[in-house]
Amino acid sequence: MAQQDAQNGGSENAGAVAATVSFVALKPQLFVEAPKANDAVLFYKAAFGAEEVSRSLNPKRKAEHELPLILSAELKIGGSSILVADITDDSASLVKTGGNGVVLCLETGDVEGAIAKALGAGAIAEGEVVEGEGACCGGRVGKVKDPYGFVWLICSPGKKCGGDVEA
Amino acid sequence: MAQQDAQNGGSENAGAVAATVSFVALKPQLFVEAPKANDAVLFYKAAFGAEEVSRSLNPKRKAEHELPLILSAELKIGGSSILVADITDDSASLVKTGGNGVVLCLETGDVEGAIAKALGAGAIAEGEVVEGEGACCGGRVGKVKDPYGFVWLICSPGKKCGGDVEA
Repeated sequence: MAQQDAQNGGSENAGAVAATVSFVALKPQLFVEAPKANDAVLFYKAAFGAEEVSRSLNPKRKAEHELPLILSAELKIGGSSILVADITDDSASLVKTGGNGVVLCLETGDVEGAIAKALGAGAIAEGEVVEGEGACCGGRVGKVKDPYGFVWLICSPGKKCGGDVEA
Repeated sequence: MAQQDAQNGGSENAGAVAATVSFVALKPQLFVEAPKANDAVLFYKAAFGAEEVSRSLNPKRKAEHELPLILSAELKIGGSSILVADITDDSASLVKTGGNGVVLCLETGDVEGAIAKALGAGAIAEGEVVEGEGACCGGRVGKVKDPYGFVWLICSPGKKCGGDVEA
């Protein structure tokens, strides 16, 4: 462990467990008052030339609304990705803690390790790691708040991404 | 102009001027209560393995504070960039309008064209395009608010980036 720490320059708190955590993507996620996420996607296409890469819809809501709510639409602008989502009951608390509705999604193959490392460095866990339809488009999602008030979603790379695309 | 519109498939509102606007980068910028941006950078290094790419300091503040305020520190996480900045008098209004202090920086070679296109699509201009030490690390920066409440900084690619790096 000491050797690993030395190799990776790990801090005392972050510990050896998570010393090898790496991230494959960082995407800002914008939460929009439901059901306006679709309008927002159209706006970002018109305003910034955004290209829609994928879209996943909220399965819970399909029957209740004329417009299915968007769980996560991934857009490319300037070579980077943003995610746009309708605020749902599930994500409402996330947006409240996140302030204006921008949270930062970090994709990693080691969700638990990444969360442990962040907590070791001083972040605060918010809730449990949940499987399935989290706000990010990955399969497993955990949430931490950093000491400066920003919310980070730590999620596994999007197994749902690429499917369910609608214009 | 009609010819340009036809060539570029420009929308009626966005107009020919901005039909060819393209973006070279999109970076979330996190505004932190001054002078904690340096602590935040250290935290993101420890928590997420962030690598600092560049840092520019606020020239106005160097004499008044023990710690120079950070105008913009660029960090790489998961192959993407985020910017971390101390909130200054200049950026305070930006953070207020941006909510929790996350704004989205879009870099482009055509700041005016990009702003015109965004306004044509329904964004609202906030202030003038300013030269110099804007919140992004580019040379010229304009600000628009989209219809969903998010603030975008439209800036020229960072001519100051890469310089002034301090650990």
